[in-house]
Amino acid sequence: MIIVMKKNSTQQDVEKIVEVLKEHGLGANLSTGSQATIVGVLGDKTKLGDFDFELMEGVEKCVPIMHPYKLASHEMCPDGRVVEVGDLKIGEKKLIMMAGPCAVENEEQIMKAALGVKAGGAQFLRGGAYKPRTSPYSFQGLEEEGLKMMRRAADANGLKVISEVVAHDQIDTAGKYCDMLQIGARNMQNFRLLREVGRSKIPVLLKRGISSTIEEWLDAAEYIMSEGNYNVVLCERGIRTFETATRNTLDVSAVPVVKERSSLPIIIDPSHAAGKSKYITALSLAGIAAGADGLIIEVHPNPKAAMSDAAQQLTPEAYAQLMKKVGALAQVVGREI
Amino acid sequence: MIIVMKKNSTQQDVEKIVEVLKEHGLGANLSTGSQATIVGVLGDKTKLGDFDFELMEGVEKCVPIMHPYKLASHEMCPDGRVVEVGDLKIGEKKLIMMAGPCAVENEEQIMKAALGVKAGGAQFLRGGAYKPRTSPYSFQGLEEEGLKMMRRAADANGLKVISEVVAHDQIDTAGKYCDMLQIGARNMQNFRLLREVGRSKIPVLLKRGISSTIEEWLDAAEYIMSEGNYNVVLCERGIRTFETATRNTLDVSAVPVVKERSSLPIIIDPSHAAGKSKYITALSLAGIAAGADGLIIEVHPNPKAAMSDAAQQLTPEAYAQLMKKVGALAQVVGREI
Amino acid sequence: MIIVMKKNSTQQDVEKIVEVLKEHGLGANLSTGSQATIVGVLGDKTKLGDFDFELMEGVEKCVPIMHPYKLASHEMCPDGRVVEVGDLKIGEKKLIMMAGPCAVENEEQIMKAALGVKAGGAQFLRGGAYKPRTSPYSFQGLEEEGLKMMRRAADANGLKVISEVVAHDQIDTAGKYCDMLQIGARNMQNFRLLREVGRSKIPVLLKRGISSTIEEWLDAAEYIMSEGNYNVVLCERGIRTFETATRNTLDVSAVPVVKERSSLPIIIDPSHAAGKSKYITALSLAGIAAGADGLIIEVHPNPKAAMSDAAQQLTPEAYAQLMKKVGALAQVVGREI
Amino acid sequence: MIIVMKKNSTQQDVEKIVEVLKEHGLGANLSTGSQATIVGVLGDKTKLGDFDFELMEGVEKCVPIMHPYKLASHEMCPDGRVVEVGDLKIGEKKLIMMAGPCAVENEEQIMKAALGVKAGGAQFLRGGAYKPRTSPYSFQGLEEEGLKMMRRAADANGLKVISEVVAHDQIDTAGKYCDMLQIGARNMQNFRLLREVGRSKIPVLLKRGISSTIEEWLDAAEYIMSEGNYNVVLCERGIRTFETATRNTLDVSAVPVVKERSSLPIIIDPSHAAGKSKYITALSLAGIAAGADGLIIEVHPNPKAAMSDAAQQLTPEAYAQLMKKVGALAQVVGREI
Repeated sequence: MIIVMKKNSTQQDVEKIVEVLKEHGLGANLSTGSQATIVGVLGDKTKLGDFDFELMEGVEKCVPIMHPYKLASHEMCPDGRVVEVGDLKIGEKKLIMMAGPCAVENEEQIMKAALGVKAGGAQFLRGGAYKPRTSPYSFQGLEEEGLKMMRRAADANGLKVISEVVAHDQIDTAGKYCDMLQIGARNMQNFRLLREVGRSKIPVLLKRGISSTIEEWLDAAEYIMSEGNYNVVLCERGIRTFETATRNTLDVSAVPVVKERSSLPIIIDPSHAAGKSKYITALSLAGIAAGADGLIIEVHPNPKAAMSDAAQQLTPEAYAQLMKKVGALAQVVGREI
Repeated sequence: MIIVMKKNSTQQDVEKIVEVLKEHGLGANLSTGSQATIVGVLGDKTKLGDFDFELMEGVEKCVPIMHPYKLASHEMCPDGRVVEVGDLKIGEKKLIMMAGPCAVENEEQIMKAALGVKAGGAQFLRGGAYKPRTSPYSFQGLEEEGLKMMRRAADANGLKVISEVVAHDQIDTAGKYCDMLQIGARNMQNFRLLREVGRSKIPVLLKRGISSTIEEWLDAAEYIMSEGNYNVVLCERGIRTFETATRNTLDVSAVPVVKERSSLPIIIDPSHAAGKSKYITALSLAGIAAGADGLIIEVHPNPKAAMSDAAQQLTPEAYAQLMKKVGALAQVVGREI
Repeated sequence: MIIVMKKNSTQQDVEKIVEVLKEHGLGANLSTGSQATIVGVLGDKTKLGDFDFELMEGVEKCVPIMHPYKLASHEMCPDGRVVEVGDLKIGEKKLIMMAGPCAVENEEQIMKAALGVKAGGAQFLRGGAYKPRTSPYSFQGLEEEGLKMMRRAADANGLKVISEVVAHDQIDTAGKYCDMLQIGARNMQNFRLLREVGRSKIPVLLKRGISSTIEEWLDAAEYIMSEGNYNVVLCERGIRTFETATRNTLDVSAVPVVKERSSLPIIIDPSHAAGKSKYITALSLAGIAAGADGLIIEVHPNPKAAMSDAAQQLTPEAYAQLMKKVGALAQVVGREI
Repeated sequence: MIIVMKKNSTQQDVEKIVEVLKEHGLGANLSTGSQATIVGVLGDKTKLGDFDFELMEGVEKCVPIMHPYKLASHEMCPDGRVVEVGDLKIGEKKLIMMAGPCAVENEEQIMKAALGVKAGGAQFLRGGAYKPRTSPYSFQGLEEEGLKMMRRAADANGLKVISEVVAHDQIDTAGKYCDMLQIGARNMQNFRLLREVGRSKIPVLLKRGISSTIEEWLDAAEYIMSEGNYNVVLCERGIRTFETATRNTLDVSAVPVVKERSSLPIIIDPSHAAGKSKYITALSLAGIAAGADGLIIEVHPNPKAAMSDAAQQLTPEAYAQLMKKVGALAQVVGREI
């Protein structure tokens, strides 16, 4: 950390700061320029706790240098982490494809969906059983019954299951049926849930919060990893901006930024970003071109009858076509599906 | 709901839509203009579930007319709800003042804080015992021990206790020590927590999510109220924007907007909005001038030693000065402290 | 400026940086901590031009310490600048009130408006003659004819005239009729216009750009001041955020932030921030409570017939009522109207 | 347009609205549902000018149905416009590549840059001669001298010239040396400049404003086109959001949205979006994969010495490598370089 002093700060101000640093077992390196004095903090900053130097006399501002996350950082694993989900590996040359309906509705729907996404080339069946809905009067999901249906549909088609948990006491139940758990955007800073899913050791897909910075997202991953669960895959799903043409704004730059700062795999969710099925293909191709490790896409056997988020779900046929395009693109960026 | 057809939509497209509406027990009112045909939906829209007409042929867009929230709406209680916390009433002429440290640190600190905020004129002692922290390596709160300390400090000074819960299984414990529970910005869409706090019937302070619209916020209040707990007070604490001069941007307009759309009381949290103690007085006055029903402010007996969020905590002396100004202002806007 | 080196940077990397600094006539102060080496730049940073150290080997990031603006800074005039417009002074105890229609429409309308705002207590008549409109098919303003009408209406009522210029070749003409020129939000970074209005020496009201940071805003003021025109008043008029309940989000915190960083007076435009007349009173009171030096409000003799922005214009009667409330509030915050 | 009445509106309220419509030569179609009455406006809405029905008694809200832009719309030219710049066509199968330094600095620099970008495969040499700079103390460009240098460098290498104008009185001069004029993000709503560049009939590259919606961008294009200049190419260059990891957030979704709503070609500027050269390749590939018609990229013969925006400029070698990747990708999305 660097502490920048105000132009009119006094020698005494600086001395007090050095003293406080000493009290915390830290050293100081003073640099007196023509415009400002700068105090470089020497030693392990975590000894300071939340002590805030900006409150001290004569301090203009404090500038952090280090990221708070460690396990999630690129330095910790410069070759990139590969997350294993059973026999599947996420983060290698082969792209990972997750697909399925927004919500599990009934046995027939999820079975048809599983057939459809398998035919299109997916490895994971996705589907919501515990739904986080903005209004209490909206459909809230089939819960454990839905998970059972998903498991059967997935098994019948050789697929893995991924589904969202929205509270920590769902983890045990969901863990019985799912190969991977999803933490949704609204829960990215539900720290209790992050800790518990970390303790479960079940692989996790961590969606970015709708207005979370990339740094906060990596901090959230760190919560999971700090409990010993390193099987974390990130998922960019659009951020909230002033633009209303799309439901959210896909931050495709997050892909190269995450690849630079972290070792974790990252996939793209074009369905929630676009909010309209007509833009999904363009965003999927953009995501893979930017270096993403896979896609999670909403596919419904009959989108017009879907119980939630219908506008953003593809038919299995549309999904198969999309996957062909992704496959062709994958090759020219050194990947494969 | 209104369904706007595309310019080039066909008669058949419109007929299909009318048919779908009929299937759901709804009527249609057609309006064919020179530029577009419009289908007005007649009847209770909730019968449609999540059916999405934007997926049907020939549809340009759907426009919702009604808010999804009902209990939280202004129409449901046009004179405004008054939330009672013991003998205190929030939403009447008298402004409600909550104050205290960001986090409970130890017996001495919270006792001094309680003394200080009581002297300044507060009715509630606030303080975090379960802290939602961005990094897993930050101080996470004293939990039940902290709540006990708060209760003792509050009782010794004739104050109510408000504290945050971050997971639904903390509600019972917190309910033993707190007069009011706080749902923090990060948990505004933790729907499980909202439901459970609704079931508890304990009065709730619901902070606005950092990037939540006012409509989403009222939907969140509706979650709590739909469980029979009408004791909900809203708290504006700043939203995330591109501006970095303040930690968040206080959306002071939220006060008149909430007063128009909802019957719930609303208070202002200038501490989290500003992120710097030097701006807190200006924002407090602005909030009360705009019509807010109270303030929640971070006060620490020794801000420079605080374990978290130090930059935004006031000394008891500064708080007392602020309260004097608020008191003078209150009178000219028809309120009192 | 501070240059933070990467953890794995080499001695050679640091030496090259010192060398580049020397070439530019600057010194370096090295601070080698346990986690990173930091190079403090000694001397006048402007000698570096736009040289970007982040491109050099081993550099993690550069941190600027000084603001780029000087004349607009608080340090340059710690007691605050008072802008004189004829016999009026902006930035002293007395609040300055500007009011009038969005656009000048005809002689009768502007005369009635002038009468109305004078009766309400305004000192300035505002009104658009050159309108910046989003669509080329919208009403674009009466231009010089409109300015003449404003001047006559203002003179008949003892008011000053303020009106917007949207291109530099309008300054001479507008200068003949206006006491103060307004630079609108869309032109806050029209640097040519800023320079020319600076050269004109006519007092300027500089609105904040819809997505401009406060720092960029002060940089824009610096453009005007760097041409020798120190008569600059800032105007906060709402920023673009995700919230749609109001047209823009009034950033009321900008008032104390500007007061801290700059010496320039700042007023509030609640009309454009709210976009709805029903919220204007609340925002006006909030702005003055936060410390603003005045208000600019849209008032129309017959808002329902207005040619533009009708939803946000008040009647003269509503304006007079608002001014009474502002007057009462002014006293308790040490101001007067 | 649709006018939605309040739940408690009266028959009289509705009648007044119908009357006002009649006065403007428009018809009304009433639709009385169980929850609200809706008035569909029949006829050409432009007859209403800016009349705002939201001010009338009993009105809940007005919902526009039509876009204000016409010439820029998809309907006006469903096969897509092809913009011709001399013998080059933008908007066909072949992608158009523009490249060059941020600013023209001197003869040698621009000549080397032209050589480099030509070798990499660009058709246009870009470079700033009139620079819009945030601070008045930054380098402002070589103006006409810079344009002459660009022209010579371009001619020597068989390239077209594109450069930015920031004021309308630069158009004549810039038109002598440039094949295409650029309107920068800060001037996207400098309506005077848009009109004049429209009158000039010179092809225009219109950058998106940093916080402009896609609708506002198309409105800006309409300004140029309404003067008879249909040679408009759009350029997405990143929008302002809360994320700070990149200089702006590339809104890659803008590509499919523009393709759906408009007939104009659209290219991507990854340099200004990323703000760091290390992310440019990923964003370039993403843009082309999403369907963009070309790229504009900052290339400098010696980025470390560049006078402005150095962090985001590529070397000619890096540019050539990038172009190879783009070429390979182009083929799988049905394009070519």
